[in-house]
Amino acid sequence: MTKLTRVPAAMAVVAGLTAGTSLAAGDALAQSIHERVSQFTLDNGLQVVVVPDNRAPVVTHMIWYRIGSVDEPPGKSGIAHFLEHLMFKGTTTHPEGGFSERVADIGGNDNAFTTADATAYHQTVARQHLGLMMEFEADRMRNLVISEDEVRTEREVILEERRSRIDNEPAAQLGEAVAAALFQNSRYGIPIIGWEHEMAGLTRQDALDLYDRYYTPDNAVLVVAGDVTEDEVRELAEATYGQIPAGAETPEPLVLTEPPPLTPRVVSLADERVRQPTLSRHYLAPSYATAEPGEAEALDLLADILGSGTTSRLYTNLVVDSGKAVSSGAGYRGMRRGDSSFVLWGVPRGDRTLDDVAADLDAEIATLLADGVTEEELERAKRRVRASTIYAEDDSSRIGRTYGMALVLGRSIDDVREWLDRIEAVTVEDVNAVARTYLDPRRSVTGRLTGVDGKAS
Amino acid sequence: MTKLTRVPAAMAVVAGLTAGTSLAAGDALAQSIHERVSQFTLDNGLQVVVVPDNRAPVVTHMIWYRIGSVDEPPGKSGIAHFLEHLMFKGTTTHPEGGFSERVADIGGNDNAFTTADATAYHQTVARQHLGLMMEFEADRMRNLVISEDEVRTEREVILEERRSRIDNEPAAQLGEAVAAALFQNSRYGIPIIGWEHEMAGLTRQDALDLYDRYYTPDNAVLVVAGDVTEDEVRELAEATYGQIPAGAETPEPLVLTEPPPLTPRVVSLADERVRQPTLSRHYLAPSYATAEPGEAEALDLLADILGSGTTSRLYTNLVVDSGKAVSSGAGYRGMRRGDSSFVLWGVPRGDRTLDDVAADLDAEIATLLADGVTEEELERAKRRVRASTIYAEDDSSRIGRTYGMALVLGRSIDDVREWLDRIEAVTVEDVNAVARTYLDPRRSVTGRLTGVDGKAS
Repeated sequence: MTKLTRVPAAMAVVAGLTAGTSLAAGDALAQSIHERVSQFTLDNGLQVVVVPDNRAPVVTHMIWYRIGSVDEPPGKSGIAHFLEHLMFKGTTTHPEGGFSERVADIGGNDNAFTTADATAYHQTVARQHLGLMMEFEADRMRNLVISEDEVRTEREVILEERRSRIDNEPAAQLGEAVAAALFQNSRYGIPIIGWEHEMAGLTRQDALDLYDRYYTPDNAVLVVAGDVTEDEVRELAEATYGQIPAGAETPEPLVLTEPPPLTPRVVSLADERVRQPTLSRHYLAPSYATAEPGEAEALDLLADILGSGTTSRLYTNLVVDSGKAVSSGAGYRGMRRGDSSFVLWGVPRGDRTLDDVAADLDAEIATLLADGVTEEELERAKRRVRASTIYAEDDSSRIGRTYGMALVLGRSIDDVREWLDRIEAVTVEDVNAVARTYLDPRRSVTGRLTGVDGKAS
Repeated sequence: MTKLTRVPAAMAVVAGLTAGTSLAAGDALAQSIHERVSQFTLDNGLQVVVVPDNRAPVVTHMIWYRIGSVDEPPGKSGIAHFLEHLMFKGTTTHPEGGFSERVADIGGNDNAFTTADATAYHQTVARQHLGLMMEFEADRMRNLVISEDEVRTEREVILEERRSRIDNEPAAQLGEAVAAALFQNSRYGIPIIGWEHEMAGLTRQDALDLYDRYYTPDNAVLVVAGDVTEDEVRELAEATYGQIPAGAETPEPLVLTEPPPLTPRVVSLADERVRQPTLSRHYLAPSYATAEPGEAEALDLLADILGSGTTSRLYTNLVVDSGKAVSSGAGYRGMRRGDSSFVLWGVPRGDRTLDDVAADLDAEIATLLADGVTEEELERAKRRVRASTIYAEDDSSRIGRTYGMALVLGRSIDDVREWLDRIEAVTVEDVNAVARTYLDPRRSVTGRLTGVDGKAS
């Protein structure tokens, strides 16, 4: 089977993978899809979201659990992701497993991922197979069976995954160190894949403890997106998931917040495998969950104005006009249960150094804080957000993912539906205010990735 | 009442307060005291250590609990220290409290402190009052009563303690940030006093939860040092602590270890209140509990050679001979349940900058790694350790403290007794080996404390 696991935030941002927009909504055309979205809750507490879309006879079926790496017990880093792997083993009903093989047989695809805040499993199949997906998924919510042998084998798999994704990737190693420095209190500083020395000690009982506590209908969100009606979903869900009793106690989502950061920090990694030196500056910033109203929307727009795409400030000024950098950008990750980060980065061109890039970024920030953004920049950013949102509407599984993530983070359907309205309401002053508040050097960790030996001070 | 709480490691080292030696033992004269030390365990699991010393008719009575800030639940930073404060309130037996007042009335003194690994309460009184001390201390192990009013008032006290000790002290603020950067996984990066935003939310129930779980005889070590015999201590202890049943489940001490650090980190704090800029370099290093055999002893001697006192390498080279620094030193904190740190620091003289100090320290380390320490340096260091150990023997309460700390960290009486033998056995090659292994830039966090605005990169 293939399983994709999301990389930690700091790695993604260092690699330039972050998008400025995170909550999707729609314009007139797409709005109709969002208006058809409905929600209900089964008696056992399972929240269900239906995203009807009959443009193609397929459905995406996703189950989200409110258990991510931040919920792991101390000393057990990686156990949430490890359990994700073990969920593809057998159950009392299907001792040999075979869920993924069955999906492949019927021409579908399936996958799973673990984030800091949640674990999700999903399949996309022809519409008539939805019931089968629910049977299998409900079965493994309740009846997982894992042997010591499987635990031993799969532990080697996750260790190898860590070696190939982190230990062989200097940028990923630096990303881990940046995250550990940025998050002083919450567990967002601990990698989702886990620290190797703790992963090596993860046991079958550790996985079962997590499974028993968190894999319950009252701690999950079911999303079905595609060629299906709410009534169909309700009937199938009640016949499958509905048969599972609620957990003994619904886990309270743990939200650790950060102390006000008081000092700039610099983290350096020199490795001969590095081809392109990169400087990234990460600021502790609130997420949609921890921000004051409107701040996260303003941060999303600020990220767009500063560093999203080839017309952004950083790209225009540092790459196109002056040719000082090979690439440069900015990003913000708003969808978190706890505090999050805003990042700027640059890759120097030719003989220019990381210190030069740092000075360039400092100058851009100084200009931003002194002069603010313009009405025109803000309107362009809003247009881009609108456009990318409309583009996203083409893919009902992506819409489903947006709703699933929002609900698993404790947000509502209306939060998603009204997001674009809230984006529209952001003013120039709102953007300038979040820039002044959050682009404060004391909140920052600077990551320096170089190909030659660097000095520590 | 007065209560002294130990400051976190990183603050102490930044302030130059760390001593190189941590486990005390003795030479021929003092050895006799150590040989008289005895140990027994009550039926309820309370470990008891007696340090007989009839040079003066006084006794020091200490109770150590295996509960420190590293054991706190996530989001409850500061609760171990908060509970230490609340332990001076009333009990069912003494509703008005008054333990400290009683100690003062009989001409004694008492105190308490919380570390990352343990909480301890102690009194020094005339020998005939030992029974009274045990009655009071055993009473509050079991019968603590705290009101919402007291919690509210005492919470203000600890918040004020944080403000005066941390928020008003730039060096302490930097120390917190250094520790948070140095310890990426274990809770040694979280301040013992707590993060302010979490302290403000600590409740009576949080304190009682900790009290009920950790304040049990099977999770404690009793030390009595002074003019007393083992039989006397046993009789009094059985009549007081012996009446308390063991806890429902003895807590397993949590030991989180660190991943191999991969990148040098720099943490900077600029504050106008800073009179003396200081550069400190902290290396992640094992403690006596996590090191390979002999390594911690070698690190203690290395700290002495490099930076203890006015004949050390750093002081001689940077302060006396070249006049480059106002002060310079090194320290190692070996007594920890988990991983710990080794630190070097320097304060520049005149116009010299922190970059100069960093270069000076780098040069000293380069010389050390290239040429190693000499036989003569090692012998001198061993002599100094021996001398300071003998000096410590004058104070039986200090010996008692050494045994208490060792036992609460899971070590044995013999570990303490044989420490000086293990120190004597350290070779030049052992010292050079730990220097090469642990003074690795990738393991380091550099703290930069300046009086003017510093740059982040």
